[in-house]
Amino acid sequence: MIVEEKKVTLKGKNIFTTESGYSFDELTIVYETYGKLNKEKNNVILVEHALSGSAHAAGMHPGKNNVGWWDPLIGPGKYIDTDKYFVICSNFLGSCYGTTGPSSIDPRTGKPYGLRFPKINIRDMVRVQKLLLDYLGIDRIKVAIGGSMGGMQALEWAVTYPDLVDKSIVIAADYKLTPLNIAYNHVGIQCILNDPHFYGGDYYDKPHKPDKGLSTARMLGMITYKSGDLFDYRFDRLRDENNFEVENYLNYHGLSFINRFDANSYLYILWAMNEHDITKPYGSLKMALKRIKAEILMIGIDTDMIFPSKYMRDFIKKLNASGGCGKIEEISSMQGHDSFLVDIDKIGPIISDFIEETYNKEMVCV
Amino acid sequence: MIVEEKKVTLKGKNIFTTESGYSFDELTIVYETYGKLNKEKNNVILVEHALSGSAHAAGMHPGKNNVGWWDPLIGPGKYIDTDKYFVICSNFLGSCYGTTGPSSIDPRTGKPYGLRFPKINIRDMVRVQKLLLDYLGIDRIKVAIGGSMGGMQALEWAVTYPDLVDKSIVIAADYKLTPLNIAYNHVGIQCILNDPHFYGGDYYDKPHKPDKGLSTARMLGMITYKSGDLFDYRFDRLRDENNFEVENYLNYHGLSFINRFDANSYLYILWAMNEHDITKPYGSLKMALKRIKAEILMIGIDTDMIFPSKYMRDFIKKLNASGGCGKIEEISSMQGHDSFLVDIDKIGPIISDFIEETYNKEMVCV
Repeated sequence: MIVEEKKVTLKGKNIFTTESGYSFDELTIVYETYGKLNKEKNNVILVEHALSGSAHAAGMHPGKNNVGWWDPLIGPGKYIDTDKYFVICSNFLGSCYGTTGPSSIDPRTGKPYGLRFPKINIRDMVRVQKLLLDYLGIDRIKVAIGGSMGGMQALEWAVTYPDLVDKSIVIAADYKLTPLNIAYNHVGIQCILNDPHFYGGDYYDKPHKPDKGLSTARMLGMITYKSGDLFDYRFDRLRDENNFEVENYLNYHGLSFINRFDANSYLYILWAMNEHDITKPYGSLKMALKRIKAEILMIGIDTDMIFPSKYMRDFIKKLNASGGCGKIEEISSMQGHDSFLVDIDKIGPIISDFIEETYNKEMVCV
Repeated sequence: MIVEEKKVTLKGKNIFTTESGYSFDELTIVYETYGKLNKEKNNVILVEHALSGSAHAAGMHPGKNNVGWWDPLIGPGKYIDTDKYFVICSNFLGSCYGTTGPSSIDPRTGKPYGLRFPKINIRDMVRVQKLLLDYLGIDRIKVAIGGSMGGMQALEWAVTYPDLVDKSIVIAADYKLTPLNIAYNHVGIQCILNDPHFYGGDYYDKPHKPDKGLSTARMLGMITYKSGDLFDYRFDRLRDENNFEVENYLNYHGLSFINRFDANSYLYILWAMNEHDITKPYGSLKMALKRIKAEILMIGIDTDMIFPSKYMRDFIKKLNASGGCGKIEEISSMQGHDSFLVDIDKIGPIISDFIEETYNKEMVCV
């Protein structure tokens, strides 16, 4: 499947205001679409990417070999079947992959935003996606789906726009981060802020960037995305002359990340995740849950260090007790949190069953 | 109980040679003792401290309020009863609490060792303790006991000196680190090495030390010593104007650590743990296990992120299959790895039962 990156720049006084109160007069959104929008405009599947992901979820760009991050899941005849559905994936606000973020040029100053970029949260990201859908003339989402931070957005869609979303699929995610997640993020944030080449976020025109800090933060991230079982299986205590293999693995991923990601974006995205909590504007979880009209499918992974399934189980229980309709499935995998990117054979059938409504609905919301 | 820190400096050509081949002509060991050595010299309990611990395991120093780190466990009439036993706790090689380490003055240069300190491992630490016992005229250990890195030493004692140790109690520890542990350590090590004030380890006479790096490494350590359940219970998503409570907690522990610990010591101790593997000189785990004559009690904690009980269970199974005598108990606690420092009411009775041999021996090694 050959696909193209699309880009729209929306302009206008206060075209988008963050929850923190900052107004953009200009906002660029990068996105991709796969399949065709039907006449009734009711075959839209909104795919949400995770922290270091991009709008390039499936297929390859013309003349390139850059397969999208969820390509085994999305395409003609695949679990998310682009022969039937119109799939949209947009790069979220704050990222460094095309949509406006801290490395973008602030039109008011002609310089990159850096730390002058406003604090954002997951709901801001979802509200920017809503702007994109308005631009595309779409007012109905059959399914919002994502893993990890993408799952947080898929759920947030059902809370913020309850009348627009039929179903949300939330994989390896929850309605808020736990204090353990915030703690890990805190360490990653310190790594970047402590880097002498961070220069308060204004490193874009400097000879050195906060590479070591970003790379170390990424290493910590990589650990939490995997599992002890996977590391035992893959690395054990194997070593070369200088390092354990697991150290080489982390070094490799740390180094490759600095070539493809922006330290300020990393900070803003961690902050956005930390801040996210669907209950915030509604006073209580119960009130937030009562808003949800979409059917919710959560998929947990038994080795996930970031979102252990018990939290998702608890969420679904409370959703159903509030009159909502939720279901949880847990898959077994040694891949840890990143299972949602790897174990397509395991999550794919669950996802397509839920999209196609082959579940007995009365059995679902229990 | 009022106790005193003791110190001995052993001198002599090549008085101690590390496994890495470095010879010290002078070695200082700081230690404490509680209770009295009996006439038969067979009432010795050797207490091993963990990464950031010290020889000050119990009681208080004269005129001070500095209660030892295992004081609720050790003392007159306590689980480790100093009315009956002669307890020795020595600060290990490489630490910054008195025993020779990277912050000590190298007598050959008159300057701190820094990174010129030799690479050490857990076995080196145990062999330095043996020097201390020789100095004290002790050739029999009734029980070697420790938690975490202290547990690694307690087990190593039974492997390196099988004829000297009657029993080893290994809490929240194993015979080697897992690749997941090594991965976490790798991130902590990067934090210190990346600090611009590390100066290749020669920061002792500089105006700034690698405080930010050490503090961030400590924060990561603190996370792994605790548990998600504990953080949920203690912090949830509580916050003040600037930070989540869990962030304040990490900041506090990061800051307080730089006032009491040395960055080079932290590096050497992590390296020592990474390198440790009781099987190393013996070719296989089976051969190492066959050396062990001591009865081994392992105590696991059900929320321990560093040493999940399954590893300890596997070790005991293999020990007993090799003709050894091992037993594992698992306690339930939300405290995570640090349970061994906190849940004295839970581990104390198991420890004293094992010391006093109220177990049916035939039931133990199964």
